[in-house]
Amino acid sequence: MSDKPISRFPGPELNKLPEDIRDRILAVQEKSGFVPNVFLALAHRPDEFRAFFAYHDALMEKEGGLTKGEREMIVVATSGLNQCIYCVVAHGAILRIREKNPVLADQLATNYRKADITPRQKAMLDFAAKVSLQPYEVSDADMEKMSQHGFSDEDIWDIGAITAFFSLSNRMANLTSMRPNDEFYLLGRIAKE
Amino acid sequence: MSDKPISRFPGPELNKLPEDIRDRILAVQEKSGFVPNVFLALAHRPDEFRAFFAYHDALMEKEGGLTKGEREMIVVATSGLNQCIYCVVAHGAILRIREKNPVLADQLATNYRKADITPRQKAMLDFAAKVSLQPYEVSDADMEKMSQHGFSDEDIWDIGAITAFFSLSNRMANLTSMRPNDEFYLLGRIAKE
Amino acid sequence: MSDKPISRFPGPELNKLPEDIRDRILAVQEKSGFVPNVFLALAHRPDEFRAFFAYHDALMEKEGGLTKGEREMIVVATSGLNQCIYCVVAHGAILRIREKNPVLADQLATNYRKADITPRQKAMLDFAAKVSLQPYEVSDADMEKMSQHGFSDEDIWDIGAITAFFSLSNRMANLTSMRPNDEFYLLGRIAKE
Amino acid sequence: MSDKPISRFPGPELNKLPEDIRDRILAVQEKSGFVPNVFLALAHRPDEFRAFFAYHDALMEKEGGLTKGEREMIVVATSGLNQCIYCVVAHGAILRIREKNPVLADQLATNYRKADITPRQKAMLDFAAKVSLQPYEVSDADMEKMSQHGFSDEDIWDIGAITAFFSLSNRMANLTSMRPNDEFYLLGRIAKE
Amino acid sequence: MSDKPISRFPGPELNKLPEDIRDRILAVQEKSGFVPNVFLALAHRPDEFRAFFAYHDALMEKEGGLTKGEREMIVVATSGLNQCIYCVVAHGAILRIREKNPVLADQLATNYRKADITPRQKAMLDFAAKVSLQPYEVSDADMEKMSQHGFSDEDIWDIGAITAFFSLSNRMANLTSMRPNDEFYLLGRIAKE
Amino acid sequence: MSDKPISRFPGPELNKLPEDIRDRILAVQEKSGFVPNVFLALAHRPDEFRAFFAYHDALMEKEGGLTKGEREMIVVATSGLNQCIYCVVAHGAILRIREKNPVLADQLATNYRKADITPRQKAMLDFAAKVSLQPYEVSDADMEKMSQHGFSDEDIWDIGAITAFFSLSNRMANLTSMRPNDEFYLLGRIAKE
Repeated sequence: MSDKPISRFPGPELNKLPEDIRDRILAVQEKSGFVPNVFLALAHRPDEFRAFFAYHDALMEKEGGLTKGEREMIVVATSGLNQCIYCVVAHGAILRIREKNPVLADQLATNYRKADITPRQKAMLDFAAKVSLQPYEVSDADMEKMSQHGFSDEDIWDIGAITAFFSLSNRMANLTSMRPNDEFYLLGRIAKE
Repeated sequence: MSDKPISRFPGPELNKLPEDIRDRILAVQEKSGFVPNVFLALAHRPDEFRAFFAYHDALMEKEGGLTKGEREMIVVATSGLNQCIYCVVAHGAILRIREKNPVLADQLATNYRKADITPRQKAMLDFAAKVSLQPYEVSDADMEKMSQHGFSDEDIWDIGAITAFFSLSNRMANLTSMRPNDEFYLLGRIAKE
Repeated sequence: MSDKPISRFPGPELNKLPEDIRDRILAVQEKSGFVPNVFLALAHRPDEFRAFFAYHDALMEKEGGLTKGEREMIVVATSGLNQCIYCVVAHGAILRIREKNPVLADQLATNYRKADITPRQKAMLDFAAKVSLQPYEVSDADMEKMSQHGFSDEDIWDIGAITAFFSLSNRMANLTSMRPNDEFYLLGRIAKE
Repeated sequence: MSDKPISRFPGPELNKLPEDIRDRILAVQEKSGFVPNVFLALAHRPDEFRAFFAYHDALMEKEGGLTKGEREMIVVATSGLNQCIYCVVAHGAILRIREKNPVLADQLATNYRKADITPRQKAMLDFAAKVSLQPYEVSDADMEKMSQHGFSDEDIWDIGAITAFFSLSNRMANLTSMRPNDEFYLLGRIAKE
Repeated sequence: MSDKPISRFPGPELNKLPEDIRDRILAVQEKSGFVPNVFLALAHRPDEFRAFFAYHDALMEKEGGLTKGEREMIVVATSGLNQCIYCVVAHGAILRIREKNPVLADQLATNYRKADITPRQKAMLDFAAKVSLQPYEVSDADMEKMSQHGFSDEDIWDIGAITAFFSLSNRMANLTSMRPNDEFYLLGRIAKE
Repeated sequence: MSDKPISRFPGPELNKLPEDIRDRILAVQEKSGFVPNVFLALAHRPDEFRAFFAYHDALMEKEGGLTKGEREMIVVATSGLNQCIYCVVAHGAILRIREKNPVLADQLATNYRKADITPRQKAMLDFAAKVSLQPYEVSDADMEKMSQHGFSDEDIWDIGAITAFFSLSNRMANLTSMRPNDEFYLLGRIAKE
């Protein structure tokens, strides 16, 4: 399978990329052992690449009321609703690793309402699903409900902004028919002793 | 995770089940190494159990123009559209084994339109998706299109009937919040040497 | 009209059918005065025929908390939502007879929310509509609501399972363009003195 | 059943109605043998009553490229899509009488795509369904398709305007929970010798 | 832009129109300074023209519990949901003038849930949106909610009937591709001192 | 109206903002004569602010096969479909100015299918609407259609990426209930001599 193109659009030649982008790609390769295809597919447009990953890091790598695992839950659940193979597979792997849970990602990607999560996480994903699919209906009543589950205004921004960012990301992945690396499918499924 | 209930409804006590049902359950346990929860959840109603599995076997175990792997593709793709965790996870495992392909099931469950399948299989799943989601719109033109892809009338019945059966199955699984066994998630993901 | 084909697929020759199927068909003919087309259309596949009617009988002929009339209400209302001519017309006739009510079936098939039913029956059909159209959203809150209307867990299974079975049936009827017998349209509309 | 209210809103006292409205109601009673409830329900607002029936007559009683039966087909099919009990039942009766066909109305109300109609009538109802449900998508291509089926521009206006008028009518009937008279259900179902 | 046709259908020659219609058109021209295209487009069918404007006036020009501005709010919000350019632009202008508010119409046409309106007006538009988009789901509970916001039964009829009338109007405008006059776009946007 | 809050979330104090952000805000104020609220609302999160505007500029300010006016058409049409007041009003103003056309933005925001645009622009917006609302269905056939209208692969990326970015932007605006500045509503409506 690894001989399939990573996207509808031509992948870049690594040595012709701007240095900062090549450095980022090499760094992720060193850390992960492979280069996730999203880096290669988006490098086709260096300025958009830089903005995309700056946005991503601002939302996914920061401290705050949500754990990193919970941030990935939002990504996996809303990407499932948007039927985005790349994001479901790649972030499913990250979620398995973050939560040390080999089954949660598949549950969330298929139907978050019946996944093994807490009521608070269920409320978080109900809100994310609404921002993703009916953003025009988000109302004060939704904010109130979130507040009752203990989410602060900053948490609500985080949940909404992560959902909004992956609304972009899901569309870029479907637009380009971005292909998840084969490595992602198995990652985090087998407990390491 | 294995201490979670298998369904909203009480599981049966194996030794109180009618003998034919207990025998079927023991046979599948011997073959698979575990009892898929669908057997236990549906044994709550013996007559429905018998009809369900008779129907299942009539559609999934028979010879015909579709391979057994293709039959599972229909199950996984339409169960994804119906957001059914049990069927996606359990039949995803069967599909991986049948097709000796560790990545196809996750692709089909998320977005069959972008999965690694042939144009003929894509047409098969477009038809199944229509039977599953807009059955009232199925028309002569759809039949014609299928025929152009080489599907016989008997193949079309098979595809439609498998989809119809899993429309039932997806609803029973969501009604009962049927829980896939943990074993399914990893099955078929690692090539056996 | 009676010269129109009963389905897209060829009807069987009665004397070439397996004996058990022929016997069932002759029995229904003796009881009803005609052979409902669903028996002929599905006899094209004997094993599926047997499973279909075994399932049907397990759900529709049994005792339990729902009356037989209420079971038919579920069929008519959800078949209306699925735009299935065969099931609306055939089960509309059965409902008129079961409930001795010449107008209820047409109301339920068009808009069950405004039909002449009790609040408890309205709750039953709201639940059935959800299982039929958004099965992935069925939740504990729905169960709770049903319980408040006096439905037991076994009743809920019945309602959900009947809906699930006719989700299959509606799809088979639309797939095969199954044609209701002309006899059904008038059955039960005129009070017998 | 006849003791049920005809609408959520109070029915008028016949002798307090403006004379022209009372006259129209008495005339329809003489002709039909009963007063269809739409006349009583809308008489609550005399000015709207007058405009409603003037509009109705301008569209349904005129000469033109469509037969009166075809006009009723549009009403029944789109009222089925809008789940409007009053219009399905009352205009179903009129259609049965106009077309001398006891089964067509029930077919059209449930799923016009599979009813016993000509390809030209199917095209007519596809267009009406689009005007009813996705009016914002009606395009030159739709007009072209209609033209290929032999519909003139005036026919297209008729089809669209009848659909638009019953979009209003379906909403008034659902708003007021308008109840069809029991008489309608049986009208036209039994051939008169 | 003013050389674009006003509709798919031919506009009438003013001097060939029936006298009452020509008089109405001249009167509106005198009052407004131009002839809104809806008058010309619908004059193609004199009887329908008369009924349309009689209905319109009965709903929009009468006294009652709703202000004239609120009636226009219903038109603009539901026409936005129905994606009807003519009604959004023409009634947007009327609303700006009626409410002496240059920004409200654009808000309502885009997303009434987030417009600068009172909670009572929000409830009014929630109800109108339901009548417009899911009329078959309008229920006693909706009536109760409206009553809690101080709407009388007559107000509810007004809101529902205005929505129903513009469901017709939106479909006629989309059917005919009716073009708003350029004059409407700017009307009411600049405060008159 | 100008005393209404610009968003659900607190606006920043300008003199406490990081210098680069304050500089950007002052620059836009100098150029436009006012500070569009999106700058203030998003400054609540400086890192996200930087990524957002870097992404925006990369897509909207660059050279390429699409004119700047066409880019704004994509924004206005898809923001209308997403019911986003801020983006419809603010980018509607920019579009009027870019295209020197006072009526096009209102048409596109309401129903791009019937706006005064070329067939090529209609194809562009059909594609954008699909990326916005059914991204999972974007297919090779869509690419082919775009190519027939003369769009290069780079143009297709631009159209898809602009749509994806404003899918994010529409969700942030609806999440925060971002309020368009009153100034936008009138901008570009009156020709400057």
